[in-house]
Amino acid sequence: KLDLGGIFPPLTTPFSPTQEVDYGQLEGNLRHYASIPFRGLVVLGSSGEFPLLAPRERLELVSRVRRALPRDRLLLAGSGCESTRATIELTGSMAESGADAALVVTPCYYRGAMSSAALVRHYTEVAEASPVPVVLYSVPANTGLELPLEAVLILAQHPNIIGIKDSGGDITRIGLIVHKTQQEDFQVLSGSAGFLLASYAVGASGGICALANVLGAPLCQLEHLCRQGRWQEARELQQRLIEPNAVVTRRFGIPGLKKAMDLFGYYGGPCRAPLAPLSPAQVEELRGTFSINGWL
Amino acid sequence: KLDLGGIFPPLTTPFSPTQEVDYGQLEGNLRHYASIPFRGLVVLGSSGEFPLLAPRERLELVSRVRRALPRDRLLLAGSGCESTRATIELTGSMAESGADAALVVTPCYYRGAMSSAALVRHYTEVAEASPVPVVLYSVPANTGLELPLEAVLILAQHPNIIGIKDSGGDITRIGLIVHKTQQEDFQVLSGSAGFLLASYAVGASGGICALANVLGAPLCQLEHLCRQGRWQEARELQQRLIEPNAVVTRRFGIPGLKKAMDLFGYYGGPCRAPLAPLSPAQVEELRGTFSINGWL
Amino acid sequence: KLDLGGIFPPLTTPFSPTQEVDYGQLEGNLRHYASIPFRGLVVLGSSGEFPLLAPRERLELVSRVRRALPRDRLLLAGSGCESTRATIELTGSMAESGADAALVVTPCYYRGAMSSAALVRHYTEVAEASPVPVVLYSVPANTGLELPLEAVLILAQHPNIIGIKDSGGDITRIGLIVHKTQQEDFQVLSGSAGFLLASYAVGASGGICALANVLGAPLCQLEHLCRQGRWQEARELQQRLIEPNAVVTRRFGIPGLKKAMDLFGYYGGPCRAPLAPLSPAQVEELRGTFSINGWL
Amino acid sequence: KLDLGGIFPPLTTPFSPTQEVDYGQLEGNLRHYASIPFRGLVVLGSSGEFPLLAPRERLELVSRVRRALPRDRLLLAGSGCESTRATIELTGSMAESGADAALVVTPCYYRGAMSSAALVRHYTEVAEASPVPVVLYSVPANTGLELPLEAVLILAQHPNIIGIKDSGGDITRIGLIVHKTQQEDFQVLSGSAGFLLASYAVGASGGICALANVLGAPLCQLEHLCRQGRWQEARELQQRLIEPNAVVTRRFGIPGLKKAMDLFGYYGGPCRAPLAPLSPAQVEELRGTFSINGWL
Repeated sequence: KLDLGGIFPPLTTPFSPTQEVDYGQLEGNLRHYASIPFRGLVVLGSSGEFPLLAPRERLELVSRVRRALPRDRLLLAGSGCESTRATIELTGSMAESGADAALVVTPCYYRGAMSSAALVRHYTEVAEASPVPVVLYSVPANTGLELPLEAVLILAQHPNIIGIKDSGGDITRIGLIVHKTQQEDFQVLSGSAGFLLASYAVGASGGICALANVLGAPLCQLEHLCRQGRWQEARELQQRLIEPNAVVTRRFGIPGLKKAMDLFGYYGGPCRAPLAPLSPAQVEELRGTFSINGWL
Repeated sequence: KLDLGGIFPPLTTPFSPTQEVDYGQLEGNLRHYASIPFRGLVVLGSSGEFPLLAPRERLELVSRVRRALPRDRLLLAGSGCESTRATIELTGSMAESGADAALVVTPCYYRGAMSSAALVRHYTEVAEASPVPVVLYSVPANTGLELPLEAVLILAQHPNIIGIKDSGGDITRIGLIVHKTQQEDFQVLSGSAGFLLASYAVGASGGICALANVLGAPLCQLEHLCRQGRWQEARELQQRLIEPNAVVTRRFGIPGLKKAMDLFGYYGGPCRAPLAPLSPAQVEELRGTFSINGWL
Repeated sequence: KLDLGGIFPPLTTPFSPTQEVDYGQLEGNLRHYASIPFRGLVVLGSSGEFPLLAPRERLELVSRVRRALPRDRLLLAGSGCESTRATIELTGSMAESGADAALVVTPCYYRGAMSSAALVRHYTEVAEASPVPVVLYSVPANTGLELPLEAVLILAQHPNIIGIKDSGGDITRIGLIVHKTQQEDFQVLSGSAGFLLASYAVGASGGICALANVLGAPLCQLEHLCRQGRWQEARELQQRLIEPNAVVTRRFGIPGLKKAMDLFGYYGGPCRAPLAPLSPAQVEELRGTFSINGWL
Repeated sequence: KLDLGGIFPPLTTPFSPTQEVDYGQLEGNLRHYASIPFRGLVVLGSSGEFPLLAPRERLELVSRVRRALPRDRLLLAGSGCESTRATIELTGSMAESGADAALVVTPCYYRGAMSSAALVRHYTEVAEASPVPVVLYSVPANTGLELPLEAVLILAQHPNIIGIKDSGGDITRIGLIVHKTQQEDFQVLSGSAGFLLASYAVGASGGICALANVLGAPLCQLEHLCRQGRWQEARELQQRLIEPNAVVTRRFGIPGLKKAMDLFGYYGGPCRAPLAPLSPAQVEELRGTFSINGWL
């Protein structure tokens, strides 16, 4: 089975000033990331503005990243759509374009109808059809929907479903998923740098963390300390990452994440509308948050 | 300005047993609706499973309905996407395909970033670019996001934004929108049959109601009674519509709505996955609800 | 049965500058209210800061108001506690002190355990034991809990439960409660001035409205217009009341309500801590809101 | 400063079949607990049904437990009321009755008005007046309100506020509170056994866990393993505690907790109404949950 153990940045999608995808800047960022011991990369996660991209842009992005990425690094590609059929089709295309696994977000527009049974059926059909392994993706802050524990435990038994990215931050649930899937070789990935140490403490395998776009090396170091059982050092490092993580996620979202990338020598650039740039005061708050925690 | 006064069914999209769009069945339904005094029709609203349709299916649907619809009936087409640019593009295509106005749902995946300012900017850009008038669409049950009152009041001043479909059901808010936009000739449409009378009582102009797919004539009758000030009769009719409305919306969603269409001689048929058909027990509950209120 | 038809102000509790109950100021307010055609008064509702009052203060308040109130005006007293036994005991004391009916808020601290069955049992025991009729009270903004429709419909059949104050503002639900309790002679009271007209339109009997502490006469006039079927005039009046209502409830709470009372010649005075006075800027916003709607 | 490091059971309050406090059964439970290495006990927490107890019952409970408890074990007593003045008074009485510290829950009925500033003022006044140290208590599942981080950080600087019981389960927030109060010698207690290991991992000092009423020794063992850095063993133990914890808290509440106490040889007994006993099927689910995790 694919080993997901480690840190993955969910890549942002660079845009030019006219909001076209800027593949050159993307490749520039990838060159910077090459020296960081990531387990792999995620394309078209929430941080990648996937809902704001056209179908052909999505495929092109996967192809480009695949070409730039050494074969020993994993490429996960977001392929979740609202309908089961579109998800199956996009997952197939992603695999053809070089994705090692598909990260499939829960459908959510009809969340009132997304019962545990409906979601189990959806993911099972996708996993049956997919040429590559499937990673579940639960991100209630975006979808207003948590993939129910009951559904996760059923889906974990499917041979082509190998893990979950859980961005909800309910550490009790994360611990319970680890516990109840011990027989399944199912891998749990923390969906945020804010609770990465805690996730490792309860048995997670790794993390897909927006902050890794900015502070990739310290996150890999945190992973290393956790794996080695150096919890005291890990805790000190984790604590300095909570506030920086908050400003690039909940507080300022992707515009904040991209601005932080700019501050750290990567290409962040603009977002696509309706995502709006930070105000100067917000930029100062962002900078101050990294600075007070010793990163700038 | 386009007069939106009256009732609009947000058409369901008929699918064949293999979940392909069945245009023949659609045209059959339209023939039935021709004798009901609707103000017009909505294509690609939430009831139309728009997020489950491919781009070319969306355009084809608008063209087909336009061709089947007399010119004195309005055609509203849903054209909201997550990005501003895609919304502008799709709105243009809808207009070319014959839509009289565009119904534009709030973007929602990045709801944490959808401030009032961001939404005002989004809708303003769409309205500037759109060849047809724009109707705002706030539906928190699906989007997890209510278009803020403050944004509505600003957008109501735009000459190409002519109204709002409000499905949230907060009657105080609906009354306030009517009150604060009196100078703008802005039209408020009730987004559900459950609070249609109350919406008329506080000054709404009409309704886009899923239940109109099933009980179109009674809804037009309710509208007629409200306009004539026959409130006692209106109330009695409204009360018999609340529970049937609930089972085709919140309780059983689109699968319930389509099953009710089947029961009333229209073509409902299956939904696209991940929306799942009702169980036999649910069908009985649905039938019982229409029956106990005197409709079956 | 007790006829609840009409408007009731849920009295605020006047405090001296040292936060002691000021019965003199209370009686002053009551003299002002005597000339307004209220159906009666409510003591110890949410606006009365009941959770901030000691048991003996609660009883004293009821006695004082009863003494000051003509016999043809109803006195409703809040008597809901967290335990069933305390609620029964306080309801009995309220009746002895002169209350015509008890207004019983849902217990809420253990809201996770407040199933429909648990609430039906609670209210049934209270109603069995109470020497005066019971009015249910559902106020989710304070309790985080809505008395489920199913429970309301069962409780409406109890001979000693005569109505509900519904402050949730879901007009569909209010209409449905009216509809499903037609055989029970059950009376529905709007819990807010914001949706008073809409509540009348769907069949409510009256309202218990915080704003009646400030604008009692206009609210009685609104009730009069609704009862006479003068809906156009009613609508115009209702619309001017929505924003003033919002600032004395959701926006600024009881401190806002009391400040508005001060502005209109009643005694508002301070709240008990932890409720805090408005800032000067908030007072100006409050004043402006009444002014722009033509009340100041 | 008082050292809160360790595990505290928040005692349930035993009732006789007629729902009177049964002090004899309480003392029986305390004798059992004497052999478990708890840091101390909590009286009148949420698990103690404090909102369902009369004032004199509350004081009597504190006195009785104090008398039964060795002086080297801490006694924390819940003293939070809705008003600041009542909280101050009850806190004083608790101290007189022998409490070593007061556990003060956030006021919550007027949660819309409970701004960070209002809560800072409330707790500051209570801490100023209290003869014993104050522990903050944030429990959103009951109060619908989380004590804002900003307020916690300000209050942590007060010399008479020594810690917080955080039951919300947001491990990122818990880690951040530890991090931002390092200079204050402020102690963070996990409010649940579900995230106890994770809380230790991010720097908490201990836990006040309902489950400790039932599985006190394993929880003290878990604490011991965490303190010794034996994380692998700790994790295995933690994982077996998550589901048992869930059934005595979120899933079945205090009736579930008391029934589990009965199963484990303590006196659980009935709850006060409106809390209702478990159904036989629920008892079996409860028993099965402890059994499947190896505790029965």
